[in-house]
Amino acid sequence: MSVKRKLYDLAGADERVRFSPYCWRVKLALAHKNLPYETLPWHFTEKEKIAFSGQGKVPVLVDGKKVIFDSYDIAEYLEETYGNEPSLFGDAAQAALTRFVKHWAEDTLHPAIGRLVLPGIFAMIRPRDQGYFRETREAMYGMTIEELAARRAEFEPVFRAVLKPLRRTLEMQPFLAGPGPAFADHIVFGALQWGRLTCPFALLEGEGVIEGWMERLLETYGI
Amino acid sequence: MSVKRKLYDLAGADERVRFSPYCWRVKLALAHKNLPYETLPWHFTEKEKIAFSGQGKVPVLVDGKKVIFDSYDIAEYLEETYGNEPSLFGDAAQAALTRFVKHWAEDTLHPAIGRLVLPGIFAMIRPRDQGYFRETREAMYGMTIEELAARRAEFEPVFRAVLKPLRRTLEMQPFLAGPGPAFADHIVFGALQWGRLTCPFALLEGEGVIEGWMERLLETYGI
Repeated sequence: MSVKRKLYDLAGADERVRFSPYCWRVKLALAHKNLPYETLPWHFTEKEKIAFSGQGKVPVLVDGKKVIFDSYDIAEYLEETYGNEPSLFGDAAQAALTRFVKHWAEDTLHPAIGRLVLPGIFAMIRPRDQGYFRETREAMYGMTIEELAARRAEFEPVFRAVLKPLRRTLEMQPFLAGPGPAFADHIVFGALQWGRLTCPFALLEGEGVIEGWMERLLETYGI
Repeated sequence: MSVKRKLYDLAGADERVRFSPYCWRVKLALAHKNLPYETLPWHFTEKEKIAFSGQGKVPVLVDGKKVIFDSYDIAEYLEETYGNEPSLFGDAAQAALTRFVKHWAEDTLHPAIGRLVLPGIFAMIRPRDQGYFRETREAMYGMTIEELAARRAEFEPVFRAVLKPLRRTLEMQPFLAGPGPAFADHIVFGALQWGRLTCPFALLEGEGVIEGWMERLLETYGI
């Protein structure tokens, strides 16, 4: 059987390095749904390669004749299309609380990680993508990449403080979504996996509870 | 029928002012479970009045012969004891995600609000409670009450940033827990109700989405 599912997945200059938090969400969601897929490495400026999706960012999932972008929309598509597989969102209450986790991750966790890892990402992408990356990220963070690097000592304790509710929750239960993982876990895992794959220092040093949960997720899905 | 349920509820010098975030959680949880109760105003240093509970903080709920303290333990007690009434926690996944909301509220939202409202609380409690309040809160926040007041302009944007995931979520759905409220909503409401009842300025100015959700909660329970 040929794999008909293809995921455009952000890659570094070394194409084995796949660090997008949003692509990681989708990779875990596909695994959760027991859906085989192959990834196509994609670089920041390869807009023409995914122009067929109608926009310029990954993840883009091609599932047979269907093309879907945006990690959350992809997860909702998978939930609806593969309803017989394990659920990503559970009931209406779980889905609603998962949306809060999404916004917490994007509004609080991502910026705290991003300020620490942007210089590392800049160094690991293709030189031809660096101009685009610098321009978009410096606008996003309101700071140059060099300034971010210089202020790392100031940003680290902020990141640790942001982790606190996650750490305290995972001290009490195996997954964010309870006894088993769901899309809420995938969202937060994506952010931290992005961080640890691109950080030149040990981003999660001393965070055994959080690292244990990340390993548990990967083991659950055989990744 | 006499009301057999009594809640020890933190009060200001004016005993009509009930501002504890943890007591508000319990008041909404009792309303959610359709359980009548009366409150007993309690002040910070009245440790002897609740010594029967084995500890010195409110909320303390007396439900017939049962005495329970700690807002989360009270909610879990209500869920277990009044299983025929609407659920506070839903299934295992909802309960697990509610625990994340609890930790987010306590580790991120409470400190951001507390730095803004502690001076106001100090001014509205009984003079005889002020020594205790100053000592415990200054240790907790690592700053004097006067320093907190002086640095308000610095703390306000931090509070607004902390609200962002809440605001964005409530733009998309009526309650944190979905189409109807549950204990996740009560937790976050408690924090913001604490803030708006004690803040000498308009804490939630311009936060129409969040204020709308707070009014919706109060209306749901006829409070």
